[in-house]
Amino acid sequence: MDKNSFTSRPPMGWNSYDYYDTTVNEEQVRANADYMAAHLKEYGWEYVVVDIQWYAYGTGTKRQQYQYIPFSRLEMDEYARLLPDPEKFPSSANGNGFKPLADYIHNLGLKFGIHIMRGIPRVAAHNHSRILGTDITADMIAAPSSICGWNPDMYGLKNEPGAQEYYNSLLKLYAEWGVDYIKCDDICNTNLYANNPYSARHEIEMLHHAIKISGRPIVLSLSPGPALIEQAWHYEKYANMWRITDDFWDSWPLLLNMFERCELWQNHVTKGCYPDCDMLPLGLVGKGFEAERVTNFTREEQITMMTLWCIFRSPLMLGAELTMMDEWTLSLITNKQVLAMLSEEHKAVQVTRNKDYAVWFSRNQETNECYVALFNFRDEKSKVMTSLDECGYYRYKDVNLKEVPARELWTGKEVRIVDGNLTDEIEKHGAALFKLN
Amino acid sequence: MDKNSFTSRPPMGWNSYDYYDTTVNEEQVRANADYMAAHLKEYGWEYVVVDIQWYAYGTGTKRQQYQYIPFSRLEMDEYARLLPDPEKFPSSANGNGFKPLADYIHNLGLKFGIHIMRGIPRVAAHNHSRILGTDITADMIAAPSSICGWNPDMYGLKNEPGAQEYYNSLLKLYAEWGVDYIKCDDICNTNLYANNPYSARHEIEMLHHAIKISGRPIVLSLSPGPALIEQAWHYEKYANMWRITDDFWDSWPLLLNMFERCELWQNHVTKGCYPDCDMLPLGLVGKGFEAERVTNFTREEQITMMTLWCIFRSPLMLGAELTMMDEWTLSLITNKQVLAMLSEEHKAVQVTRNKDYAVWFSRNQETNECYVALFNFRDEKSKVMTSLDECGYYRYKDVNLKEVPARELWTGKEVRIVDGNLTDEIEKHGAALFKLN
Amino acid sequence: MDKNSFTSRPPMGWNSYDYYDTTVNEEQVRANADYMAAHLKEYGWEYVVVDIQWYAYGTGTKRQQYQYIPFSRLEMDEYARLLPDPEKFPSSANGNGFKPLADYIHNLGLKFGIHIMRGIPRVAAHNHSRILGTDITADMIAAPSSICGWNPDMYGLKNEPGAQEYYNSLLKLYAEWGVDYIKCDDICNTNLYANNPYSARHEIEMLHHAIKISGRPIVLSLSPGPALIEQAWHYEKYANMWRITDDFWDSWPLLLNMFERCELWQNHVTKGCYPDCDMLPLGLVGKGFEAERVTNFTREEQITMMTLWCIFRSPLMLGAELTMMDEWTLSLITNKQVLAMLSEEHKAVQVTRNKDYAVWFSRNQETNECYVALFNFRDEKSKVMTSLDECGYYRYKDVNLKEVPARELWTGKEVRIVDGNLTDEIEKHGAALFKLN
Amino acid sequence: MDKNSFTSRPPMGWNSYDYYDTTVNEEQVRANADYMAAHLKEYGWEYVVVDIQWYAYGTGTKRQQYQYIPFSRLEMDEYARLLPDPEKFPSSANGNGFKPLADYIHNLGLKFGIHIMRGIPRVAAHNHSRILGTDITADMIAAPSSICGWNPDMYGLKNEPGAQEYYNSLLKLYAEWGVDYIKCDDICNTNLYANNPYSARHEIEMLHHAIKISGRPIVLSLSPGPALIEQAWHYEKYANMWRITDDFWDSWPLLLNMFERCELWQNHVTKGCYPDCDMLPLGLVGKGFEAERVTNFTREEQITMMTLWCIFRSPLMLGAELTMMDEWTLSLITNKQVLAMLSEEHKAVQVTRNKDYAVWFSRNQETNECYVALFNFRDEKSKVMTSLDECGYYRYKDVNLKEVPARELWTGKEVRIVDGNLTDEIEKHGAALFKLN
Repeated sequence: MDKNSFTSRPPMGWNSYDYYDTTVNEEQVRANADYMAAHLKEYGWEYVVVDIQWYAYGTGTKRQQYQYIPFSRLEMDEYARLLPDPEKFPSSANGNGFKPLADYIHNLGLKFGIHIMRGIPRVAAHNHSRILGTDITADMIAAPSSICGWNPDMYGLKNEPGAQEYYNSLLKLYAEWGVDYIKCDDICNTNLYANNPYSARHEIEMLHHAIKISGRPIVLSLSPGPALIEQAWHYEKYANMWRITDDFWDSWPLLLNMFERCELWQNHVTKGCYPDCDMLPLGLVGKGFEAERVTNFTREEQITMMTLWCIFRSPLMLGAELTMMDEWTLSLITNKQVLAMLSEEHKAVQVTRNKDYAVWFSRNQETNECYVALFNFRDEKSKVMTSLDECGYYRYKDVNLKEVPARELWTGKEVRIVDGNLTDEIEKHGAALFKLN
Repeated sequence: MDKNSFTSRPPMGWNSYDYYDTTVNEEQVRANADYMAAHLKEYGWEYVVVDIQWYAYGTGTKRQQYQYIPFSRLEMDEYARLLPDPEKFPSSANGNGFKPLADYIHNLGLKFGIHIMRGIPRVAAHNHSRILGTDITADMIAAPSSICGWNPDMYGLKNEPGAQEYYNSLLKLYAEWGVDYIKCDDICNTNLYANNPYSARHEIEMLHHAIKISGRPIVLSLSPGPALIEQAWHYEKYANMWRITDDFWDSWPLLLNMFERCELWQNHVTKGCYPDCDMLPLGLVGKGFEAERVTNFTREEQITMMTLWCIFRSPLMLGAELTMMDEWTLSLITNKQVLAMLSEEHKAVQVTRNKDYAVWFSRNQETNECYVALFNFRDEKSKVMTSLDECGYYRYKDVNLKEVPARELWTGKEVRIVDGNLTDEIEKHGAALFKLN
Repeated sequence: MDKNSFTSRPPMGWNSYDYYDTTVNEEQVRANADYMAAHLKEYGWEYVVVDIQWYAYGTGTKRQQYQYIPFSRLEMDEYARLLPDPEKFPSSANGNGFKPLADYIHNLGLKFGIHIMRGIPRVAAHNHSRILGTDITADMIAAPSSICGWNPDMYGLKNEPGAQEYYNSLLKLYAEWGVDYIKCDDICNTNLYANNPYSARHEIEMLHHAIKISGRPIVLSLSPGPALIEQAWHYEKYANMWRITDDFWDSWPLLLNMFERCELWQNHVTKGCYPDCDMLPLGLVGKGFEAERVTNFTREEQITMMTLWCIFRSPLMLGAELTMMDEWTLSLITNKQVLAMLSEEHKAVQVTRNKDYAVWFSRNQETNECYVALFNFRDEKSKVMTSLDECGYYRYKDVNLKEVPARELWTGKEVRIVDGNLTDEIEKHGAALFKLN
Repeated sequence: MDKNSFTSRPPMGWNSYDYYDTTVNEEQVRANADYMAAHLKEYGWEYVVVDIQWYAYGTGTKRQQYQYIPFSRLEMDEYARLLPDPEKFPSSANGNGFKPLADYIHNLGLKFGIHIMRGIPRVAAHNHSRILGTDITADMIAAPSSICGWNPDMYGLKNEPGAQEYYNSLLKLYAEWGVDYIKCDDICNTNLYANNPYSARHEIEMLHHAIKISGRPIVLSLSPGPALIEQAWHYEKYANMWRITDDFWDSWPLLLNMFERCELWQNHVTKGCYPDCDMLPLGLVGKGFEAERVTNFTREEQITMMTLWCIFRSPLMLGAELTMMDEWTLSLITNKQVLAMLSEEHKAVQVTRNKDYAVWFSRNQETNECYVALFNFRDEKSKVMTSLDECGYYRYKDVNLKEVPARELWTGKEVRIVDGNLTDEIEKHGAALFKLN
């Protein structure tokens, strides 16, 4: 089983975090899945992902004080495997786990994903719980000094006998449930350990092997970022996605900063390997954080975000509450010509970047179709220019072309690029994306 | 109660760690205390300190695998306060705690000290134990991401209501037992947090206040090192001793390195404030580490160590098993003329240091008695020179003195310092300590 | 000659930099010296210091582009020793150097200081100039990769034969001129070399030895800061003053930051050894920088600055143009009771510091007179409190005193401190300084 | 002119440094070129590169003291452009520059390269030399604080008017001479500036533009390493080669370390863009360093080096004195089947790496030919294993193949890979390279 075959283009889907934080429940997940099946599936959107602490009781009840209530009650089986909190996920009761919900989602023609924290529940280590199919107990494999800096639930695992077996037991269960996607947290960058941020390297390998053993093609997504560029080879060998930033939210400085990160990771986007720009905080977000709002991004900034994520070929995970999405946002995420750049045949490169603007170029290596994206970083409407020569266009096309017709994919505007000079007036923080004929 | 009055000179005593690791028991402590009372007390040695994990069952039983067995059984009262393991400390049974042992030691005319880890037992946080005299429970004050990098027993405390009360409850108990000295660990440098090694700053303050509230003059000693020079003011305000190195053992590179540390901290030695060079690994050490041995230091290196610790005015804590100490070692630690430099009136300064040698100068500010120590760092017998001018001697003495008589305090050798030039041939890694008349 | 005897208290004086930048001329220096002799000398102010590039032609003529014009003409003798630019210092012509100016200042009962850059003029290295009294040429001792990051005039010196001789030749000349104070720059922290900021360690030692050889008690002041706390011992052994900050100017964040630096260095203030808070940007400043202005500090901030500098015992160097100083500023720098804290007998300690306020305590160890300074860091008028117990007052005084009378030294206000509690309402960014009877 | 078209595969050639240091002369260069034309050209070797200080007089005459004699005489024209020292390069006299030597090399069917330091000669800045075709003088564009940490000849250029013109004037001259390759030093990593190691970013861009303006396809090679992975995009846009290590020499630890660097840079090898493993210290090296020797590498280590450089597609620059090369070394660098992996169609990936061994896989994307390299890092003969599955072989081949025949390219040994398992016994520090049929 080749993990690079699990997904031939960057995964597209919905994730519960940006709207619900730790509080999402089964009904809400189903409603969002229903919406996706009805309105988004045809555009390629397919993953429905339940984010953090689905296993914890009382999530969100002390939100002013804690995002994650320390030392609180977790639903768990006798083998130290966390199970869905039946109060939030009623169908999971009686040992059903996420199977009923996964089935529901599969029946909609979609895929099902869950978030996990690396490691084993702390309480299982203190209780010496047994690992499935072994005589090893949790205290023997839990690393007492390997914790997450922001979530109190787990201990990391030692690189010792029993640890692989524990991850195997997890993936066995997840495969039984029908999980298609795992977002594992506190693993891509274990930033509590400033001198050793890749301290969970062996746990990434164990998860990869456990997936292989499970026999189910489960996409492995690693969080949080920023991923470590020096470990690029390792991510590429063992995972499908890895976050290249810390949590991304609807703030212009964070979006601007993503250009630096995409510049850094652009050579690492290949089939089965997707540096991840994080979720798209579009539409309605923030409710579980006690800050429900329409995204703070302007429409221009949203176009910039979608253009960058697509030309870079980042995974696309919607942070919005889908059921309350407006028409404009819907149009933004269902632009087939833009989404086309995500396909396996595309290869993109940053042409230039400075404090005022950036230019990217993408080419479909099979069809030889070319795209140029112009981004305006300035706080006012500004001209952004590039040349097809600088883009490397003539490496693939006739250098004697005097005029190249092109279409802007967000507006449909038709232009002619004369002598290779492409210029456009772009709104504050906005973008233009040209497909060259 | 002024913490600087708790001890007018650097504490001198014995600590169980270097010989026993985690395994010391009551009988062994009493035997060492008996020896101290009989042979060392008259020279100023007075503290008997029980080091780490006196509260843990089965210490040392898995020594090849663990120094501290993770998730093992700890003796604890209902208020999350650790108690002596009655298997190791029989007199502590029935809620007596360390009182019987402390009484025994006090009756010998000595003082009693214990080691603690900062924070609250992890298991108490998971069990939501109540804090004495409050409605607060351990899960509310335990900081789930504040742990020790090398010992699995505790969570650090948040800087929030209830935390001070917990430390107060500890100190109340220790004062009842008759504790005179606390060596608190994982607090001086919380090195797991490379970007925030002083993360337990508030816990130092809480311990200081708890001691004040207890009404008992308990010396507060902070470990591990290296202490942070930028926090010197804070250590000086709240503690009596702080370790300026990581664990010190019987290795020449570590001893050589201590000269750099003493250079750094020399201006911070004042009454009640003692930068700490760590224990003296003399005589027989290492049994609990499964490496019982006579100290690896040569006699010359031991003289160097004693000379530096005394002239710098470090606390002196014997790491040896006292009951098996040889005559030579006994003579080393009972040289009254050398130990005299520890007294409050002395002020010392490094005169010079390079890769080959160092010179220190000490003066009794009341009697105007002066001392010069010469240290040879080379791997062969070598001359070390200085001048009384460079030592600053003539700031306090008649500059016209042509000859100054002096006595070497380890050998008794009498010399005359002519024209201010002091030279001596010193053995490899050895030292000479002159008292000038 | 003991360098600690060169100045028994922190040097007080005037420096040309804050007002004139590189442009000060002889007439201006004399005018400021005249003012000092007439109005300030009786309060202890005595040094008149000519700051940077007195040897360079055309200083200030390209100020918009350069502070220091690269590769410009420098006045120099045949031995690679820089001489005053005779256009700025006419009396220096004909080989007189600074002797006439120094004589003038000495005749006023004052002392004369100059600024130098470490090393040897770059042009002398390229020209292979000979070093006085040797066959060594400048190219042999100039370190081609040891430069200043912000001034283009010099190469640092290698730690090799000839370098000490060059510094000796400089100090010989300066002693002949009658220089009393050298502010050597690019030496305290060679910050261009981020991995080796103490790269000029050997040049500090060479300057010290050259002063000793010169036979003249010349105060050695090292810039720029921040000085390296790990090198405290070395500064103390070889220099009289060292800057504990980068350039200080009339900005509240810089002043606030100085409290952190004084906390760090407080144990290092002793006779002949003065951590240096940098010049006092009072009165009229900035002309040479093309930004002439009255200091941006409010009166309260100026009081805070003077109180901190004096209780900490920093050197005091006036940055103002003296001849245009207003009455209020004059009163600020001539408060004898405040300046009294600078004397050798005083020892100060920070009592507390947090984001809102700080408290310092000073005691005259001979007279047992005590002072308490309260500082308000908040942006509004606020109460600041301390207790005499926390200050350590009762270590030296009768603990049973119920009432301690005190006088605020800036306002003359008389207060009574009852039960050891000292509270005052202090203006935004202001200070109160109490002398306790 | 597209710089990626200058060279469609990694440049192969000879560089004077490893054997001659700074001392190489015209006769020696010609002799090595003659050898290359006669024996190596047919295998793809073509560049003849004169390394550092061809413009300096007396190079090597003070070798015990200096590699680069500071402040020594440099041959230069009136426009601050360095010219060959006519004592070393007689044909360059009378303003001929390197043209005669370049012509000679071109006539052999080879290409000619030179080493330069970034920036402008220091002496020209001090002399205010004029820049060709402008009224700007060298002092106006030289950055007085931008120097090389190890070579004393140059100042870096400011990012200001005149700087581009200076580089243009250089490239104009080099194009006139017929230079085909420039190795620019102190530019890839300006490591003196630890906080700003990419401080010469603008000078890289200026060189690129100057080459473009010159109209000659001159390969731009940047030194020294390690290149900064965060700047990968910038190197790829403006240069052809960039050193991924500091100077590489014939030492096993350095060779072992190269595997880590190749892992890091493997995704950045594309047409016109070549991360550079540095010169091959083969055969006879070290004469100019006063350490003439046959390479310290064992034959196995040499095979490891050649295998890694070729499969990674590093530029290949021979450090040996060619005229004295032995047969075995000649065979090593003329293995056509190994060198074939350098071609544009190949794409390689590290399969695995740990402390004991590494595996690489390369595929010709046009012919679908595959290669597997096994490397043994251990200090004894050891088995190294991989599977074709792990190599990703079945992404391109029929997964049902039970047996794959293969040939080891250094020995000619034929093997059959059964069930995808490839194992070989490999000598200490050696390698095996299989071509799969």
